[in-house]
Amino acid sequence: MSHERISILGLGAMGRALASALLEAGREVTLWNRTPGKAGGLVARGAREASSVEDAVGAGDLTVACLLDDASVRETLAPAMPKLAGRTLVNLTSGSVRQARELAGWLERYGVSLLAGGIMAVPPTVGTGGAFILYSGARDLFDRVAPVLAPIGRPHWVGEDPGFAALYDMAALSGMYGMGAGTDHAVALVHAEGGDVDTFKREVLQPWMEQMLPIMVAGADVSESVPDEYNPAMQATGLENILSASGEAGVPADLAGHLRASLWRMRRALAAR
Amino acid sequence: MSHERISILGLGAMGRALASALLEAGREVTLWNRTPGKAGGLVARGAREASSVEDAVGAGDLTVACLLDDASVRETLAPAMPKLAGRTLVNLTSGSVRQARELAGWLERYGVSLLAGGIMAVPPTVGTGGAFILYSGARDLFDRVAPVLAPIGRPHWVGEDPGFAALYDMAALSGMYGMGAGTDHAVALVHAEGGDVDTFKREVLQPWMEQMLPIMVAGADVSESVPDEYNPAMQATGLENILSASGEAGVPADLAGHLRASLWRMRRALAAR
Repeated sequence: MSHERISILGLGAMGRALASALLEAGREVTLWNRTPGKAGGLVARGAREASSVEDAVGAGDLTVACLLDDASVRETLAPAMPKLAGRTLVNLTSGSVRQARELAGWLERYGVSLLAGGIMAVPPTVGTGGAFILYSGARDLFDRVAPVLAPIGRPHWVGEDPGFAALYDMAALSGMYGMGAGTDHAVALVHAEGGDVDTFKREVLQPWMEQMLPIMVAGADVSESVPDEYNPAMQATGLENILSASGEAGVPADLAGHLRASLWRMRRALAAR
Repeated sequence: MSHERISILGLGAMGRALASALLEAGREVTLWNRTPGKAGGLVARGAREASSVEDAVGAGDLTVACLLDDASVRETLAPAMPKLAGRTLVNLTSGSVRQARELAGWLERYGVSLLAGGIMAVPPTVGTGGAFILYSGARDLFDRVAPVLAPIGRPHWVGEDPGFAALYDMAALSGMYGMGAGTDHAVALVHAEGGDVDTFKREVLQPWMEQMLPIMVAGADVSESVPDEYNPAMQATGLENILSASGEAGVPADLAGHLRASLWRMRRALAAR
């Protein structure tokens, strides 16, 4: 199996970004999307548009699914399962740990090998320096697929358990959403109090977040404890102050959920003493 | 006024870190703390321990307050106000925008100049490369104070309004707490599903957060809109998936407040279309 002809199912923003990076690297790419008309620019760059899922699956040594959710993967693949038998599916569709494990079982019954993946990039960063892709499933399968798909992002194997790519992907996304909840609220607060949002972002928020990132990652743990030197009592007071300031400034309370999560953790740490 | 003799009020972890960085840079430092016995190591390195707040305030060209909260600042300074008249107070105590503005007014009635500050560092990073200090108040006051206090962190003036240092400080802290809420939840999820927390932090979470930080800061805005290319419908589905996965894994719901804040924003964006 050369694994060099790649079929991509799903041409949302992410599917198109994957196709673009693979075409750029000279791979032979076949495309399929549920609603047609998304492949235009990619066809002009040498991709072939398949007439059906079966056609797409038959054309590739490797089929990559990048669809809306787990249900779309099952629904899309169902008619093509006979064609897919004996081949490899790389599933880059977001989903849960349980869904990934169940999908692996379902595919196995049809003789299809699954490499489950999680894309650690957003469409504009696919194929660029920082992008990486988490894969879980059989190690030898990963070793064969990794060089073929390397153009979309650095391949990183996280274990045999097909659920692990989804687990690490989802957990990392949660980290990102926390960062986003924090930066959204920060900007809303500065705006509400008449500060200069652009100056704040450039001169305060960005350098401060860069400084704190490794400290927050290192400090994240699963226990209820907060080290004494972090002074949870003072942090709880600080969090309450930001929450009241936010309310006084008229920032919607829903935007401050990350502060209540942090406050909850500080209070638990204090109660556990 | 040479502004080279510095008195520090408050020897919590942060006050001690400030004193240490100033002593290291050869400044003449006088210390005061409400409960004695915190100055030991610093006195051995050349600091003087004051016998009272009045004594401390009288010994310094510049008094730096780093106390628990705004109420402590007022209570601590009250007996020393006659001594402080005509001098400068740099207040590095955390507080709200309103408190900083009111403190400036109160001090002005006694002829005391206020430079309000916000420390963009944690005690272990005070005086190191990434640390910076936000100051707000009269520009000429900042220009005199900045070189004296530069050893604690790069001085950065954010405006005449005495509330602005607190505003930017509080907003940036909210950003940090968001990042912390995200990383705490991420680690809890990986742990609950049997993943390897250390590998996850090092190989997935840290590089992913680094990649996304500038994107999240740039994307943070004050409108209800979410750009179409961010696909709020897909993000809302993704957030709901992480929330259910988190619940299924038995992670406490309070830890996921940042996800509900993000989901709220996506839903508002969808509703506003």
